[in-house]
Amino acid sequence: MQDHRAPDFPELTLPLFASLKKIFKTETGRVFLYPASGTGAWEAAISNTLNRGDRVLMSRFGQFSHLWVDMAERLGLDVICVDVEWGTGVPVEAYRHHLEDDPTIKAVFATHNETATGVTSDIAAVRQAMDAAGSDAMLYVDGVSSIGSIEFKQDEWGVDLAVSGSQKGLMAPPGLAVLGVSQKALAAAESATMERCYFDFADMIASNDVGYFPYTPPIPLLHGLRASVDMLFVEGLSNVFERHFRLAEGVRRGVHALGLSLCATAPYWYSDTVSAVRVPDGVDGAEVCRIGYHRYRTSFGGGLNKVAGKVFRIGHLGHLNEVSCLAALASAEMALADAGAGIELGAGVAAAQAYYRQALTDRQDLADLDLLASAAPR
Amino acid sequence: MQDHRAPDFPELTLPLFASLKKIFKTETGRVFLYPASGTGAWEAAISNTLNRGDRVLMSRFGQFSHLWVDMAERLGLDVICVDVEWGTGVPVEAYRHHLEDDPTIKAVFATHNETATGVTSDIAAVRQAMDAAGSDAMLYVDGVSSIGSIEFKQDEWGVDLAVSGSQKGLMAPPGLAVLGVSQKALAAAESATMERCYFDFADMIASNDVGYFPYTPPIPLLHGLRASVDMLFVEGLSNVFERHFRLAEGVRRGVHALGLSLCATAPYWYSDTVSAVRVPDGVDGAEVCRIGYHRYRTSFGGGLNKVAGKVFRIGHLGHLNEVSCLAALASAEMALADAGAGIELGAGVAAAQAYYRQALTDRQDLADLDLLASAAPR
Amino acid sequence: MQDHRAPDFPELTLPLFASLKKIFKTETGRVFLYPASGTGAWEAAISNTLNRGDRVLMSRFGQFSHLWVDMAERLGLDVICVDVEWGTGVPVEAYRHHLEDDPTIKAVFATHNETATGVTSDIAAVRQAMDAAGSDAMLYVDGVSSIGSIEFKQDEWGVDLAVSGSQKGLMAPPGLAVLGVSQKALAAAESATMERCYFDFADMIASNDVGYFPYTPPIPLLHGLRASVDMLFVEGLSNVFERHFRLAEGVRRGVHALGLSLCATAPYWYSDTVSAVRVPDGVDGAEVCRIGYHRYRTSFGGGLNKVAGKVFRIGHLGHLNEVSCLAALASAEMALADAGAGIELGAGVAAAQAYYRQALTDRQDLADLDLLASAAPR
Amino acid sequence: MQDHRAPDFPELTLPLFASLKKIFKTETGRVFLYPASGTGAWEAAISNTLNRGDRVLMSRFGQFSHLWVDMAERLGLDVICVDVEWGTGVPVEAYRHHLEDDPTIKAVFATHNETATGVTSDIAAVRQAMDAAGSDAMLYVDGVSSIGSIEFKQDEWGVDLAVSGSQKGLMAPPGLAVLGVSQKALAAAESATMERCYFDFADMIASNDVGYFPYTPPIPLLHGLRASVDMLFVEGLSNVFERHFRLAEGVRRGVHALGLSLCATAPYWYSDTVSAVRVPDGVDGAEVCRIGYHRYRTSFGGGLNKVAGKVFRIGHLGHLNEVSCLAALASAEMALADAGAGIELGAGVAAAQAYYRQALTDRQDLADLDLLASAAPR
Repeated sequence: MQDHRAPDFPELTLPLFASLKKIFKTETGRVFLYPASGTGAWEAAISNTLNRGDRVLMSRFGQFSHLWVDMAERLGLDVICVDVEWGTGVPVEAYRHHLEDDPTIKAVFATHNETATGVTSDIAAVRQAMDAAGSDAMLYVDGVSSIGSIEFKQDEWGVDLAVSGSQKGLMAPPGLAVLGVSQKALAAAESATMERCYFDFADMIASNDVGYFPYTPPIPLLHGLRASVDMLFVEGLSNVFERHFRLAEGVRRGVHALGLSLCATAPYWYSDTVSAVRVPDGVDGAEVCRIGYHRYRTSFGGGLNKVAGKVFRIGHLGHLNEVSCLAALASAEMALADAGAGIELGAGVAAAQAYYRQALTDRQDLADLDLLASAAPR
Repeated sequence: MQDHRAPDFPELTLPLFASLKKIFKTETGRVFLYPASGTGAWEAAISNTLNRGDRVLMSRFGQFSHLWVDMAERLGLDVICVDVEWGTGVPVEAYRHHLEDDPTIKAVFATHNETATGVTSDIAAVRQAMDAAGSDAMLYVDGVSSIGSIEFKQDEWGVDLAVSGSQKGLMAPPGLAVLGVSQKALAAAESATMERCYFDFADMIASNDVGYFPYTPPIPLLHGLRASVDMLFVEGLSNVFERHFRLAEGVRRGVHALGLSLCATAPYWYSDTVSAVRVPDGVDGAEVCRIGYHRYRTSFGGGLNKVAGKVFRIGHLGHLNEVSCLAALASAEMALADAGAGIELGAGVAAAQAYYRQALTDRQDLADLDLLASAAPR
Repeated sequence: MQDHRAPDFPELTLPLFASLKKIFKTETGRVFLYPASGTGAWEAAISNTLNRGDRVLMSRFGQFSHLWVDMAERLGLDVICVDVEWGTGVPVEAYRHHLEDDPTIKAVFATHNETATGVTSDIAAVRQAMDAAGSDAMLYVDGVSSIGSIEFKQDEWGVDLAVSGSQKGLMAPPGLAVLGVSQKALAAAESATMERCYFDFADMIASNDVGYFPYTPPIPLLHGLRASVDMLFVEGLSNVFERHFRLAEGVRRGVHALGLSLCATAPYWYSDTVSAVRVPDGVDGAEVCRIGYHRYRTSFGGGLNKVAGKVFRIGHLGHLNEVSCLAALASAEMALADAGAGIELGAGVAAAQAYYRQALTDRQDLADLDLLASAAPR
Repeated sequence: MQDHRAPDFPELTLPLFASLKKIFKTETGRVFLYPASGTGAWEAAISNTLNRGDRVLMSRFGQFSHLWVDMAERLGLDVICVDVEWGTGVPVEAYRHHLEDDPTIKAVFATHNETATGVTSDIAAVRQAMDAAGSDAMLYVDGVSSIGSIEFKQDEWGVDLAVSGSQKGLMAPPGLAVLGVSQKALAAAESATMERCYFDFADMIASNDVGYFPYTPPIPLLHGLRASVDMLFVEGLSNVFERHFRLAEGVRRGVHALGLSLCATAPYWYSDTVSAVRVPDGVDGAEVCRIGYHRYRTSFGGGLNKVAGKVFRIGHLGHLNEVSCLAALASAEMALADAGAGIELGAGVAAAQAYYRQALTDRQDLADLDLLASAAPR
């Protein structure tokens, strides 16, 4: 194992921090890597920048936004929680009203991509609502299942705390919490009084500035992240985002062709990294997952909490391509049929195929095919 | 790197040899591992047991049986080559006639599974023909793309030289030639006069008997083979064969549902490890492969030699499952359509899905699903 | 990446938890694995079981005991910190006096192995002092650099919170905090009021009980830990401890033969996992490390805090053997000489060699050598 | 597994061939990679370029030169074998005389580095002798344990067939035979009549020219070789050679300081990649190896054939550094003492340490140390 106190360790870490800033699209902020899950990143964001009793504005529309609210409350924040329909996302208008009504709100939280329901929210619109309300609250965004797969612009959107993990769009194994932190948040951390140690920004900054960590980092994961981030750059971030849209759109067309609907209530909310599919009445979503796993060797996500049994989820982010999504659709069709859904086998696949053919033909001249083989996921 | 001359190296090798004998289903023979490709295994089989000028009976019905004939001729054998239609396999009746007519035939060659056309031949029938003709020739079988995936019974079928490689049904990376050799062939090797050294059985035997190799073996591959062979045993060989039949049958039903036919001219010849699909008139099979690779990130095998441009191949052996095959079909449908074939997208997938659902339901009681999750490929 | 919500994921986790309990030697407690460093394990221990303002008894005699005190204070504990000479360990007598004088002490902290000075403390004696003082405080032990390498008996010693990490004696990559927690500590966690979420025992218990985690665990590390724990069991824990003593004793004899002394002030304190070597007057310990790393490609640990420049450290825990330690000594001799120390090259190596020869000869009959090749580190 | 028939496979292979040519130092020749061991490379060299009955000049002074002679005879060559003392190398004068006396000699064989005795021969001198004798024979050189570690100049020395393997100086796992072949040898291959197929240059050329192989190559090994060759280039070939000399010279000084001698009879023959050490009278070299392996976890090479029991070998090539060599010496000292040799523990290590300190100090200004950390083996 490499020595994380070695003189040349910063040759690994400093360029990695710089690359992650490019992915978060922040030039003015900085990026932290903690040995932790995305949940640890949530806690790091809160505990470094807020005080117990601080009033914060949150919204809840899925298991992961729910858990973040739960954490905020357990860490002693005074949470204004706006509950909205699961299948929708951050209620921008409601946020604006709350912010206008209550200038004591110190922080606004938004889940960019709610993994449990397959809903992406408009963070730029949240920022606009904050500005319109004249709020100087800080903006906290959960980008665990968006950053690296869906466009994310930390500086442009004025995100103060952007939270992610190594194992989703960043395509590395799990084990690293990744945070993008604005200068405003860094300043807040200097006076924030919530007790903290493991996740303390100050300790991390003191070490990171010279390329080290305050305690032993998961060294192999840093190398893994270096490799996966390089893959994103080779493909090109805009190509990566375009690919995720295309893959997701194919899945959605397949779902609709089966006569099914998404948990996301409208295209506005559709997520390009995960689709939660509503199962027909009389069909148990958990049974779809169980059959999918055991019989068809496919890991679908189950419905969580309010949508337990009502949906199953197809993840489509990271190192995958059109055929991976067709495989997922094909498997889902069989599992649905086995679970009692009256669907036509192959219909979803066919709709997705038609879309993919068109989308790829539009994008690629056949004559250019030889040039395209290298970067995209195989 | 482990020391291949170390005192405990045989703890790896001796059990590995024993395990491979179980896969070849030989108790009386022995197994050799050479640092080489399957082509090297062909050469080892010939050069150790035959003399230049020996009359041998071969048949040609695809690129790989063609290449074996070519090798035999270049190594100085007197080859009686029976050419039969590509899409059929070993001509058992013709073999019987040749053997009856010519008692000087020293060796009979049979390609168990012709990868280029997706044709499996009946080795038990070849043995019966040899016996019926009263031949005491030795039987050489190319099992590169069958052993470990399709039932193979070296002792029962009287196979003297069974030839394979690490990278197909044995599911390890390429780099090891694997041979199963009968006692009769070992005896022949003692008097065979063809010059040889690298592939010499005698050197290998002297070293293998005590767990070593006459020169440096590809050590990591031996560990890889240990792991992959263990996977076959955990699943159970009969389950592995059943799975390969099931996967292949789904692919075949998919192909037929698209209105296409296989290169294999009749079900008798169908291979459970690879399907060569005839493209419609006016469609270029090479173009299907090219589009598949570049646009849909799928590696189809191209048509080789006599079937160049006329077929493309879907491999379905090793660590894969039903959904892998559906993905291949889905990709093939798109590539075919892009190349100008008038096929209905999704139709092949749907037929395969229907078959897989039925086959798995017949096989598994839903109540038993929890017990099935571990062994089979995910 | 494996799905950590899959039905068969507990087949990995539940036996792993059971194995770790054997290493901690606790039958009544339970073990937690957090995606975190050892520092996270410290925080998990404190934040789950204590309340802000609680009076706790700690001692400080090296950088890592220092940092734990720092954490306790930052997390709001009322720390009685006994400072003792760096090079000694937990002051058991002083602990007894404090505990007798102050029955409000809720927790006693002990660093089992202080990595910065190479000092091992007697945890059984700490327990005896607590019992002698009639204290019902809980006992917190930092076993990061001891557990898995030095005898540790959680139940027998009455350790309530035993804290470790994956990357030291457990021989896996860094990234997992490992805690052994007694029933008494679990009970305390139910009423402890310190705000916590990421490290909360209750969330972990609810998920672990059925083989899962409350958030994404570092899945590859769990497999790595499975493998490395199995290696410990194959060698046998008592053999592992004996090996670490033997390796360390050789290093110590080498150090003394060079006319140098250890930071640990007496054999009572000697650590079997790390030796901090005092450099002669006029020699800079940091220079020894710098030369060692750049010129001799060896990572020595530098002196930290109070012993900065005065010591350099040789780690000798995990997957290593006698020759590894001789290599470290040989490198240290050269680096010391280059840094200006007047030492005799080879003298330390020779003393260690003499000891290792004797120790291994005592242990092994030459006739038994063939039996020994497999388990111990190569 | 990557598809070795894929359109972009040549992006891996063609640059790899080019890199290997740089290591062989041939601009006019070409390089072949066979799935085989170094022994396969020997056979490929002979079988492609010579005819049965051809008169060839060889010399024998160790197990590996012995085995090459054995192969040549078994493959039907008319071998003039010059036996010289084991511990010396290619007898250049004798070669010259033979060549002058017998103009029918078609090929001259030279083992550049005899691994069994630790002897390096002067290939430039062999070429000079050939030229002086007016011979137009081809020159065959076994560079298995030299190329990549000891200077090798294929074009300048007029080597027609240079033979190596992946697992020595090229620092990849075993499994690839590597040959450098001159234009003269390629021309000879066109008319050579020895039967061959697996190792046939023509098949390889036809495929290699467009970036492919005539059969399945060991794909992971190609990637491994790419990585290890890049490591050689990063360090710089001249630095690599200098390092191997330095490491070897330290080992030799250590051996001499122990009162022992090398199998190589004079410095002229000393090998920089392996040292064969003569054991004192009454000591069994095999026992040294056995003790080294079992008790000290060190793999020494045993004495082979004529020097069985008389020597043990310390390999020092590839990815290793000064401290690796000190570890080997320290282990050897203990094993020797245990086997009954009257040596002074530590004396060999001390002599090597003194040399390494001086050599590295001469080479490196301490002020430059920070610049040196990256490339050389750690």
